[in-house]
Amino acid sequence: MNLKRSPLAPDTFPVLPILTGLDMWVAETGMKYKNRPDVLLMRFAKTSAIASVFTTSSTPGAPVDWSKKCLDKHKEGSGHTTGLLVNAGNANVFTGQQGHEDVREMARLGAVTIGADIDDMFVCSTGVIGEPLDLGPFRQTLSENSLLNTQASWAQAAKAICTTDTYIKGASQTADIDGVGISICGIVKGSGMIAPDMATMLGFMFTDANISQAVLQELLSEYTRTSFNAISVDSDTSTSDTVMLIALGTAGHDLVTNVDDPKLDEFKTALQRVMLNLAHQVIKDGEGAQKFIEVCVTGAASDKAAKTIGMSIINSPLVKTAIAGEDANWGRVVMAVGKSGEQADRDKLRIAFGPHLVALEGARAPRYDEEIVSAYMKTQDLVLHVDIGVGEGAFTVWGCDLTHGYIDINADYRS
Amino acid sequence: MNLKRSPLAPDTFPVLPILTGLDMWVAETGMKYKNRPDVLLMRFAKTSAIASVFTTSSTPGAPVDWSKKCLDKHKEGSGHTTGLLVNAGNANVFTGQQGHEDVREMARLGAVTIGADIDDMFVCSTGVIGEPLDLGPFRQTLSENSLLNTQASWAQAAKAICTTDTYIKGASQTADIDGVGISICGIVKGSGMIAPDMATMLGFMFTDANISQAVLQELLSEYTRTSFNAISVDSDTSTSDTVMLIALGTAGHDLVTNVDDPKLDEFKTALQRVMLNLAHQVIKDGEGAQKFIEVCVTGAASDKAAKTIGMSIINSPLVKTAIAGEDANWGRVVMAVGKSGEQADRDKLRIAFGPHLVALEGARAPRYDEEIVSAYMKTQDLVLHVDIGVGEGAFTVWGCDLTHGYIDINADYRS
Repeated sequence: MNLKRSPLAPDTFPVLPILTGLDMWVAETGMKYKNRPDVLLMRFAKTSAIASVFTTSSTPGAPVDWSKKCLDKHKEGSGHTTGLLVNAGNANVFTGQQGHEDVREMARLGAVTIGADIDDMFVCSTGVIGEPLDLGPFRQTLSENSLLNTQASWAQAAKAICTTDTYIKGASQTADIDGVGISICGIVKGSGMIAPDMATMLGFMFTDANISQAVLQELLSEYTRTSFNAISVDSDTSTSDTVMLIALGTAGHDLVTNVDDPKLDEFKTALQRVMLNLAHQVIKDGEGAQKFIEVCVTGAASDKAAKTIGMSIINSPLVKTAIAGEDANWGRVVMAVGKSGEQADRDKLRIAFGPHLVALEGARAPRYDEEIVSAYMKTQDLVLHVDIGVGEGAFTVWGCDLTHGYIDINADYRS
Repeated sequence: MNLKRSPLAPDTFPVLPILTGLDMWVAETGMKYKNRPDVLLMRFAKTSAIASVFTTSSTPGAPVDWSKKCLDKHKEGSGHTTGLLVNAGNANVFTGQQGHEDVREMARLGAVTIGADIDDMFVCSTGVIGEPLDLGPFRQTLSENSLLNTQASWAQAAKAICTTDTYIKGASQTADIDGVGISICGIVKGSGMIAPDMATMLGFMFTDANISQAVLQELLSEYTRTSFNAISVDSDTSTSDTVMLIALGTAGHDLVTNVDDPKLDEFKTALQRVMLNLAHQVIKDGEGAQKFIEVCVTGAASDKAAKTIGMSIINSPLVKTAIAGEDANWGRVVMAVGKSGEQADRDKLRIAFGPHLVALEGARAPRYDEEIVSAYMKTQDLVLHVDIGVGEGAFTVWGCDLTHGYIDINADYRS
């Protein structure tokens, strides 16, 4: 299937800075995709700290199991050369004992190439599920002498990890830590929350800042909650989702070891911006997406309740199809609040579409004007604000509409 | 929009028996639908016991609040004439204080007509949300002298409660209680788990058996769990869903007051069959449905876990689109098990599509033959069997595929 560039895609891929301590290369195995890189190999300076979060799926792929072990080892003590190997085309998921042996062999090949220990080589795979990996092309590609001759550009790296993505995704920010300018940049792939055949979400962020592993992990986990874990294309969860944050430690400031250190204030804001930008780009490449939707829930019993309600709205097929049809169907939002299982009171609910209040006090807003709200629904970026009226919990989630394009893409993928 | 009869619909509406103690009439208000009945009025003999289950939505419609109060009163003491009034076209949901006054007035109009007390008149409404009800046509229709002249047929009653249904739905069974032959019959409407604009699920079952309210309620609640609550068209939950079971008490056998009374054995089986038949008919009218899917989960940690896993599979947009595309994509089933949040072990999972084992021991089944399984996927009724391998919990759920038809119906309903 030939996928057209998403109508929500940004105009261009941004210019991302080169970071000291990070080497990257790409290669073409030709395994599944032709005339494009499908392998990304990275080497991180010995000063690096690595943080990572993984899918919560109870049926994760072999590479997730492997990388979790690498992270556990890294947490116990760093100071080694570390690296990352990513392949696109085969997820090595549900491939039995062979899958575990194959990911180990991939790690070995990557480690030998960059001069690292095998258990310092993180591995991420994305692509088809249930098909045994063909190691031949990897072995050949990774052992070619010319591989390390030319470093890859950020755009090439972003391309090498894509599967069904219709555009390559990157973002960056700068910040100041203790008087030293640092950069944060990242690349991401993913065009559904998942499509197990092809479209896991993988996100990799890098900074030259010098931050301890514990602090880095705390920031990544916290900000993932409000970025990558606050988006949904189709409510499905990948068996391979992985988000990593690597602090290369090469910027020249002193190591930051306290998550509450005020020196990190600017860095925190910048990191959140990069992660949110990348998360939004995944939604904007949502399969068949034509609208970008923000659902802002306030007044819930707790933040957790607000998130559950937000996800109930953004995942509701009826809400998503109404938005695809540019229909100001707030009745379906009421329904989605009601089915969430969280505390809500019909008569306290306030719902606004953009600046237009559509429902309050258990009924349609008195000044509701169908024509005005319908005109708003025709815009590409929509904000739904839902106040539950029972507490102070708040959470914002993002998603996209459900269109014929989604059915087209997913109803006959493998064939 | 003109909806074509579902390809999964049965050939004809069945012949249902006339039950002593049940009177029913239909009428046309012309409020929303033309040239078809849209009001159903029923009167139940004084000997009747009434059981009911309602939507779990925290934003239910005013008629649900009203009927819950009627049920509470009925539980405290029966022996009155009771009745039911149903209208199709306006759900009287999210209509504020006016909605509560309107349902009371509907109940009053119905009660006067059949000679019952107002709080013995159950009311169910289905149709558009958030629009105030126009009581004028009801008042006129229900006060016409000719209304009670002609009793309605089962087919007319089934038609009067329809909204987006593409066919009318009914089922019946007979059984023996204490040497007396009794009948059970029922009608149902619904073509999505919900589409709040139009397609709530309403189910009404009737029997001439003589059974106490407490026993009746226990049976209805228990069997709803494995029938109407084990189906899903699109994971959404209506604000108006109501299922009622009325035992008219006119068959002539002694009152049954013990749920474990062996005299009820045949009745229990017959009731379950009627309820499952009606539930399946709702799925077979699922918006855009082209495949009827049974997901049978075994070997889960508990029955509850099995249901959660089953619903995760049957509600997964990726599983549903794969089936629409007749793709034997068991990788998506693995994904749906993984995201359910229930205990599972990738390496113990066994998945079969119909009689064909496709996955076991954490990998594709050794004898998996794509061609054979693909041929199976072309059949209209599919069975997915998923054994989790961690316990003895089991549950079966039913659903349908996700097609372009669903988007067509829901992307521009109100317009």
